[in-house]
Amino acid sequence: MTSPDSVVIGVDFGTLSGRALVVRVSDGAELGTAVHEYRHAVMDSALTAHQGEPLPPDWALQNPADYVDVLKDAVPAALRAAGVSAEQVIGIGTDFTACTMVPTTADGTPLNEVPEFAGRPHAYAKLWKHHAAQGQADRINDLAHSRGESWISRYGGFISSEWEFAKGLQILEEDPEVYAAVDRWVEAADWIVWQLTGRYVRNACTAGYKGIRQDGQYPSKDFLAALNPEFADFVETKLDHQIGQLGDRAGGLSAQAAAWTGLPEGIAVAVGNVDAHVTAPAADAVESGQMVAIMGTSTCHVMNADVLAEVPGMCGVVDGGILAGAWGYEAGQSGVGDIFAWYVANQVPGEYAEEAESRGLSLHELLTEKAEVQPVGAHGLVALDWHSGNRSVLVDHELSGVVVGLTLATRSEDVYRALLESTAFGTRTIIEAFDSSGVPVRELVVAGGLLKNRFLMQLYSDITRLPISTITSDQGPALGSAIHAAVAAGAYEDVRAAAPIMGGRIKEAYTPDPQAAAAYDALFAEYKALHDHFGRVGDDIMRRLKRIRREAHAGARDEAGPAARQRAQTQEVTA
Amino acid sequence: MTSPDSVVIGVDFGTLSGRALVVRVSDGAELGTAVHEYRHAVMDSALTAHQGEPLPPDWALQNPADYVDVLKDAVPAALRAAGVSAEQVIGIGTDFTACTMVPTTADGTPLNEVPEFAGRPHAYAKLWKHHAAQGQADRINDLAHSRGESWISRYGGFISSEWEFAKGLQILEEDPEVYAAVDRWVEAADWIVWQLTGRYVRNACTAGYKGIRQDGQYPSKDFLAALNPEFADFVETKLDHQIGQLGDRAGGLSAQAAAWTGLPEGIAVAVGNVDAHVTAPAADAVESGQMVAIMGTSTCHVMNADVLAEVPGMCGVVDGGILAGAWGYEAGQSGVGDIFAWYVANQVPGEYAEEAESRGLSLHELLTEKAEVQPVGAHGLVALDWHSGNRSVLVDHELSGVVVGLTLATRSEDVYRALLESTAFGTRTIIEAFDSSGVPVRELVVAGGLLKNRFLMQLYSDITRLPISTITSDQGPALGSAIHAAVAAGAYEDVRAAAPIMGGRIKEAYTPDPQAAAAYDALFAEYKALHDHFGRVGDDIMRRLKRIRREAHAGARDEAGPAARQRAQTQEVTA
Repeated sequence: MTSPDSVVIGVDFGTLSGRALVVRVSDGAELGTAVHEYRHAVMDSALTAHQGEPLPPDWALQNPADYVDVLKDAVPAALRAAGVSAEQVIGIGTDFTACTMVPTTADGTPLNEVPEFAGRPHAYAKLWKHHAAQGQADRINDLAHSRGESWISRYGGFISSEWEFAKGLQILEEDPEVYAAVDRWVEAADWIVWQLTGRYVRNACTAGYKGIRQDGQYPSKDFLAALNPEFADFVETKLDHQIGQLGDRAGGLSAQAAAWTGLPEGIAVAVGNVDAHVTAPAADAVESGQMVAIMGTSTCHVMNADVLAEVPGMCGVVDGGILAGAWGYEAGQSGVGDIFAWYVANQVPGEYAEEAESRGLSLHELLTEKAEVQPVGAHGLVALDWHSGNRSVLVDHELSGVVVGLTLATRSEDVYRALLESTAFGTRTIIEAFDSSGVPVRELVVAGGLLKNRFLMQLYSDITRLPISTITSDQGPALGSAIHAAVAAGAYEDVRAAAPIMGGRIKEAYTPDPQAAAAYDALFAEYKALHDHFGRVGDDIMRRLKRIRREAHAGARDEAGPAARQRAQTQEVTA
Repeated sequence: MTSPDSVVIGVDFGTLSGRALVVRVSDGAELGTAVHEYRHAVMDSALTAHQGEPLPPDWALQNPADYVDVLKDAVPAALRAAGVSAEQVIGIGTDFTACTMVPTTADGTPLNEVPEFAGRPHAYAKLWKHHAAQGQADRINDLAHSRGESWISRYGGFISSEWEFAKGLQILEEDPEVYAAVDRWVEAADWIVWQLTGRYVRNACTAGYKGIRQDGQYPSKDFLAALNPEFADFVETKLDHQIGQLGDRAGGLSAQAAAWTGLPEGIAVAVGNVDAHVTAPAADAVESGQMVAIMGTSTCHVMNADVLAEVPGMCGVVDGGILAGAWGYEAGQSGVGDIFAWYVANQVPGEYAEEAESRGLSLHELLTEKAEVQPVGAHGLVALDWHSGNRSVLVDHELSGVVVGLTLATRSEDVYRALLESTAFGTRTIIEAFDSSGVPVRELVVAGGLLKNRFLMQLYSDITRLPISTITSDQGPALGSAIHAAVAAGAYEDVRAAAPIMGGRIKEAYTPDPQAAAAYDALFAEYKALHDHFGRVGDDIMRRLKRIRREAHAGARDEAGPAARQRAQTQEVTA
């Protein structure tokens, strides 16, 4: 039995900061919150945690000590904000960016805290968006396909450079001394739980989605040896762990962590989790057919199902990856809100900015206002939403954005609307891939910053022909972590039972307008034709343009001095 | 023998004004100029010359009296500016927009000056950009192809809605009373010469390019009857005239015109001509293989050749169409400078405008400056320059603009440069069509406003792999008309003899950079692939998008009241 005063704490570790949220167990009421910004933020050009040594292109590191500071700072601050006493707290749960990897000694000490390695970049945590292991990822993919590894189809045919095997192999091949010193190669989601409990428990979610663990097995020794003989024993020597299911108790809060946080020693600490996945129960959307779309700069889609299916181009399917006992599916769109932001920053004239400012609107609001009065199709445009490549269905980061139908009468809001539509067409393409693979989507549940744009939401409903529900909480991930804490503390039987009580969504906040939906069908047919031409059957123009672009920059570097070389490199990296 | 003090006057009738230029016969020196703006400008929304009655979409009318005012006003003003006396003037030549058509009585009086027709829109001059006869043009084309008319291939397979048969048929079908009252259907280029001389002489240039006169014949009575039985005698009853070759004397200046202009009665008046065509001798570029590109909002290409060839998708080939005794070829790009202007007005952020203003640059100059430092291909983009459709090679006004290769790193100057390049790729596509049809292009001679952009000129040279010469005069058309006046007055044997003395160009002002040209070849291959996909073998997405767009606007009109209807119509028209 849980007291009506009982609370749990959810801690959401993001890219730049961590947030603690105090939540009442009995009804999910959010009582108080606090944020702590990481002191070293993202180290992507220099190793600011040491002596500021420059970092190569595509790197993104973090200092794990910053994560601990969130526990020390944000957790007590959230308790104070909530006005509750520490004794009321019965559990703590966490979620993290993923795949973010920490190299540690046998006791979990980050290698960068071992003095002899403090100046070695590979001794730091590799943030999810560290993209310097692309060469390793390419080799993993090529080898998996050539050997016909069965696990590769569980990832839509594609292992990302962001994931742990590619990042681990990069250490071996670039800094063997650091690699040799790594006793454990730990997902940050689990590292923080290790700090809270003193025990290393690996969560089933990232082990599956990021760690290539399928049917209880990692890639074979043979496979790893074929990648690099020195990598053959990677699983045995660096990944030794036990698996914890989501919602399970990883352990009790250690004396040290109790001292950091001011929370009672011994309270339940939930198994680690991932920001997107933990949002599903926060939105009360853990049943089959409820696809949760976390829509921000990019969109992550997660959905449970009773069946195992191989959906072409999905990011992954994992047993217990979202909810223990269900198959969890993940898909994603690599560019959504960041495409709109790019457009507003780079392609909207000054008089729009002036009008927006004089009327107290953001440029997004102004463009939406001008675009939403148009009949469907009146702009005469179709765009492809591949400005950051394509993460699901086609899975090709060399793809790029397209706008077709431009005329001298095309205005800024026309292209803006076409870009909004293109991302909805991208979502529909993913949904159709799920539907036709035997994992039907019945409801789209939206979380994330973009749900505030009502026009965008209606457009998504019209284009996908699905009802759209929207998450009630503004702090989806932290609330989701709190739900897992409550389950780990025994207040609910499981996450499925807790979700409808502690989480919530506005059901069918948007439903398709049949006339608009029919009109969008015609535009979607055009999107699909472009999608297949540039992404599948057509020629390879986008890959060739990227190659031409790289060669042009490389040529400029060869011809110029060191400063120009550096500049050209930076330009290329930001692409 | 011509006195060293002899001068001629060239008058260039443009879309909004007419310009007179006084030129010394012996060396082409430009001594003085003056401009007169048309009082009624372009009547495209209301009949401002009468009582302001509203005009339907796509109409564009003029009042011929405004042309006469140029003679009365600009000619004497130019003489005064030149500081020469009227007695020194030995001839006058003119050029006009085309195809601009004036309906007249038997003595050349514009029908709108006949009181009973003053309120009838069809009684006014139809300016070149009157596009309301598209239905008639479509029927002319369909019928010509289905009957296998031999003349249709002389126009690349396509008669424009701007030309005289489509415009004439429109009068018949929309206002038969006006049609019945038309004694002569006169190209404005010839109407002005009629006003100057009192004689109606039809110039060989527009008779061929716009009037479908080939091998001495207009389309047959059978053909016209099949279009519309009432149209069968159109040629006999409305087009009766004699043909004058370019550079010939159409007649002597009439007493009335002498009174208007202050010039001596009886001086030579040259046969009428067209602005683009008359520019060739002004640039000293009348030989085979010298393609003159008049680059402004759109580009018109004219070139002479000794041989007759059927170049796919050219605008036309006419015997004596540019130079008496040579085959004159015309091609064009419907959008060039207006695409750049559209981009600058609609897709460039405010901080660029601020930087340009603070540095005293135009936005075009600023974007060019930022773009020109990039290595070829560094932006990773290819665009199609079809924002106003495609006028040559594909000849399809339903085509539209495309940009491929957009990423979150794409900046405003990147797209700007891609658009500059796309128009050069469009020019290369036309040149290749000429080359492969047995009419090789050896030199590109540029006139028009865009020649001031040195980066653009170099880019055209690199992409076409041709030397580029640029016209010396800032007043190409008026100078070209003056050259024709000098020839008509007998000061030179023919235009070919006068051109090198009175006209001029900076020879090989730009030559291809071999390295850049090689790099552009790769991008041109991508342009060509897109060109063929969207314009030829691929699917018909652009046409479908335009249809969807029209239907969306039409649907909005049907659902809304009269005001919204009007607005939607206006939006559609400006597209």
